[in-house]
Amino acid sequence: MSNTKDRLVIGKVGGQPSSQYSSTKLVDLVTETDKACEDLIFNHLKELYPTHKFIGEETTAAFGTTELTDDPTWIVDPLDGTTNFVHGFPFVCVSIGLTIGKVPTVGVVYNPIMNELFTAVRGKGAFLNGNPIKVSSQTELLNSLLATEAGTKRDKKTLDATTDRINSLLYKVRSIRMSGSCALNLCGIACGRLDVFYEAGFGGPWDVAGGAVIVREAGGVVFDPSGADFDITAQRIAASNPSLKDALVDVLRQTE
Amino acid sequence: MSNTKDRLVIGKVGGQPSSQYSSTKLVDLVTETDKACEDLIFNHLKELYPTHKFIGEETTAAFGTTELTDDPTWIVDPLDGTTNFVHGFPFVCVSIGLTIGKVPTVGVVYNPIMNELFTAVRGKGAFLNGNPIKVSSQTELLNSLLATEAGTKRDKKTLDATTDRINSLLYKVRSIRMSGSCALNLCGIACGRLDVFYEAGFGGPWDVAGGAVIVREAGGVVFDPSGADFDITAQRIAASNPSLKDALVDVLRQTE
Repeated sequence: MSNTKDRLVIGKVGGQPSSQYSSTKLVDLVTETDKACEDLIFNHLKELYPTHKFIGEETTAAFGTTELTDDPTWIVDPLDGTTNFVHGFPFVCVSIGLTIGKVPTVGVVYNPIMNELFTAVRGKGAFLNGNPIKVSSQTELLNSLLATEAGTKRDKKTLDATTDRINSLLYKVRSIRMSGSCALNLCGIACGRLDVFYEAGFGGPWDVAGGAVIVREAGGVVFDPSGADFDITAQRIAASNPSLKDALVDVLRQTE
Repeated sequence: MSNTKDRLVIGKVGGQPSSQYSSTKLVDLVTETDKACEDLIFNHLKELYPTHKFIGEETTAAFGTTELTDDPTWIVDPLDGTTNFVHGFPFVCVSIGLTIGKVPTVGVVYNPIMNELFTAVRGKGAFLNGNPIKVSSQTELLNSLLATEAGTKRDKKTLDATTDRINSLLYKVRSIRMSGSCALNLCGIACGRLDVFYEAGFGGPWDVAGGAVIVREAGGVVFDPSGADFDITAQRIAASNPSLKDALVDVLRQTE
């Protein structure tokens, strides 16, 4: 634990990025902290639930994809917003989700910088630091605050599609925010700070497993940007309150 | 004061936007809160500095532009990040700047949601909640975290230029953040959470008067996106540490 704590200092949240990162050319940063935190979380959960399965970003990166089954499966991103963590930008979180029958059933997303703990259990409501939260009551896309991300891919086709979509959406929404954390974008939808969110091409199910149940339990909807059902393994997600789904899907379809 | 406090409740930071905003079609939102806070700040400063001049976003909106002179002039944005405030997104601040001879000389930017107070006096250093801050030590644009904003204009020429510039920049930086507050973007540069920032077409000098001196006192540079000297009345700004200025200006010139 003290070792983990020492490693956590590496990224220096809140200050200048440490020099060890200044020479890296990687867009998708990986720190030792991710691995240390994932081990910590998995070891703890395995003690409590020895028969459950586990999928984590770092384990997947090291050992390849683990197939999601109907078994109870803990899906963990020990550090969502890694770039933010390295730079000290405050949208950083731990995301923990439990799926049963592939359905997101428990969600815990914690931003230690802002001391915000989002929690939800299927059928039991969603909470921010213990207080019930709900999605926004916005009904007009034009008055909506949209969240999305530029992603980590830098090939021309992907980048052009990303910025063309942003261009089209800016005519249809009030404004756009990019915070750099998929899980916290979902929590922003859940507590009504954001009205609509979409992202394609994020890392994996660990980015959305926790947030998806938090959005749903806050009265929101989680779906594929095409309007199809949400597939936790598809690396595509959209979320909003129920009123805004159709309007968001319409605009996203026009930019496919 | 109690009246001001009551009005502050209108925007409901942290929760759902209140119903009074749900029907507005305005992209650039104005709330009663802005005016109440500006009056409060101006009245207090006028008691202390009766001979100084004052420029505020709300006063300008109501009575037209006040020319910036060489006289000591307090330039105030009572609520930077108005859209965020209405939606409850946590990048909200009060920005207060003092120019003398048109040079930003005192800067105070306070984010009450995150309880972060950025302060600087020319020649005396920059501080976050009383602790000295400095810009990042990043020297490579490719490893830099860029902040910018989509702005409030929705004509095709402006929007195309905005998203074309973002497209070009995404090849050259690590990632992009849009927080919705110009003053807090400057403070992000000052404390090293962000490496490079540019914005054109923001509201007026009140968005940058406080942040500009905070960046400079943190060891950073503030300049026109073209590379020319910063003009506080031009509604164009860029900021970074000294190492990254030329690289940022080069990319921005390519997308002019």
